[in-house]
Amino acid sequence: MNQDTRHFAEELAELKERLLVMGALAAERLQAAVRAMVERDRDLMAEVISGDEAINRLHLEIDDRCFKLLALRQPMAVDLRAIVAAFKINGDLERIGDLAVNVAEAAERYLAHSPVKPLIDLPRMGDLAQRMLSEALHAFVMGDAEAAERVLALDDGLDALKNQIFRELLTYMLGDPRTIEPGIDLILVSRHLERVGDHATNIAEDVIFIVEARDVRHHGADRRRVL
Amino acid sequence: MNQDTRHFAEELAELKERLLVMGALAAERLQAAVRAMVERDRDLMAEVISGDEAINRLHLEIDDRCFKLLALRQPMAVDLRAIVAAFKINGDLERIGDLAVNVAEAAERYLAHSPVKPLIDLPRMGDLAQRMLSEALHAFVMGDAEAAERVLALDDGLDALKNQIFRELLTYMLGDPRTIEPGIDLILVSRHLERVGDHATNIAEDVIFIVEARDVRHHGADRRRVL
Repeated sequence: MNQDTRHFAEELAELKERLLVMGALAAERLQAAVRAMVERDRDLMAEVISGDEAINRLHLEIDDRCFKLLALRQPMAVDLRAIVAAFKINGDLERIGDLAVNVAEAAERYLAHSPVKPLIDLPRMGDLAQRMLSEALHAFVMGDAEAAERVLALDDGLDALKNQIFRELLTYMLGDPRTIEPGIDLILVSRHLERVGDHATNIAEDVIFIVEARDVRHHGADRRRVL
Repeated sequence: MNQDTRHFAEELAELKERLLVMGALAAERLQAAVRAMVERDRDLMAEVISGDEAINRLHLEIDDRCFKLLALRQPMAVDLRAIVAAFKINGDLERIGDLAVNVAEAAERYLAHSPVKPLIDLPRMGDLAQRMLSEALHAFVMGDAEAAERVLALDDGLDALKNQIFRELLTYMLGDPRTIEPGIDLILVSRHLERVGDHATNIAEDVIFIVEARDVRHHGADRRRVL
């Protein structure tokens, strides 16, 4: 391995590490937003809402790293795929950070009303979305396509919880108009968490793309190898 | 201009053209979904829901083109920025296609109930989201950063319409429980259209990035030049 290759490998490792830092930050903020909602913790909500600067800075920094690696290193094959995937994963993590803010904002509105019901399924959705995210990131670090495939399988559970939450809340709302406004916020939170799962799915698909040079998006007839 | 440069310029022009085809398709499907909802046209809804194969195919094709241009051409500066932006714009357009499906699915559920009210503001939101998308794409083709900046300014209008729709529907829902379930679907559609605006905003930001090598995401302190 010559000097130049060694540097490139280091830069790539550093890029992955920064993505992990960003992923941990996004997961932490999401968890804080859901916990703030469950525990009706107004300070924690405010903290999540105002505290996305670190993640936004990382988003720009990582994009910039990817860009410079492409421009200066002109990587090929698996390295090129890793950098293109890093751009996309970076975007997904940034959106998860935004979704944490959306959850915290809905939680603040929810606080203006009496609780509709004890929140059981919503934190369960939060945990599952979080698990998908952390397993997708783990698959990314390990370059483990099988672990990434397992993430894809978890998405159905999220969908089932979302539908269950909707049906249950609808019953409350039909029975008591005072629960309509807060009920809508709970439904919106379930949609935000569903989207966290979508982003985790995107990350898992990118991992499969890096490792196997196989594009698994739009499953079915469209599955094929690239490059 | 030598043979090789000419080919590269042609390939880049072709890439842009394919992105425009995809953009037109996404816009068309979004428009159809909103029209199907307003006109209660069940056939059109079904068509939107089942008809996303063309856009998914284009999504993969364009990603593949970007990838090959990076791998085989090793572009620099403005060309590199254009290709990286093309990856992102491609992703945004694909998501707009998904959102059109989401709108059509909500429209199908909405059809199971008596209409809550004549839909005025929702198609207005659809028109505005669509306008943002088409102006962002136009700015992309023309490499016009000023036009892209104007797209960013339109987002506030979308936000205002969304809030207005929410307040109005809440009044209906509080007054008549039969409007709760269909009202929620209208609220969800307004959120989908808001997200179309977010994606158009992303595209406009990418155009500014290509043209001016300036990253305008996370406005404010974070604005700076890259590369």
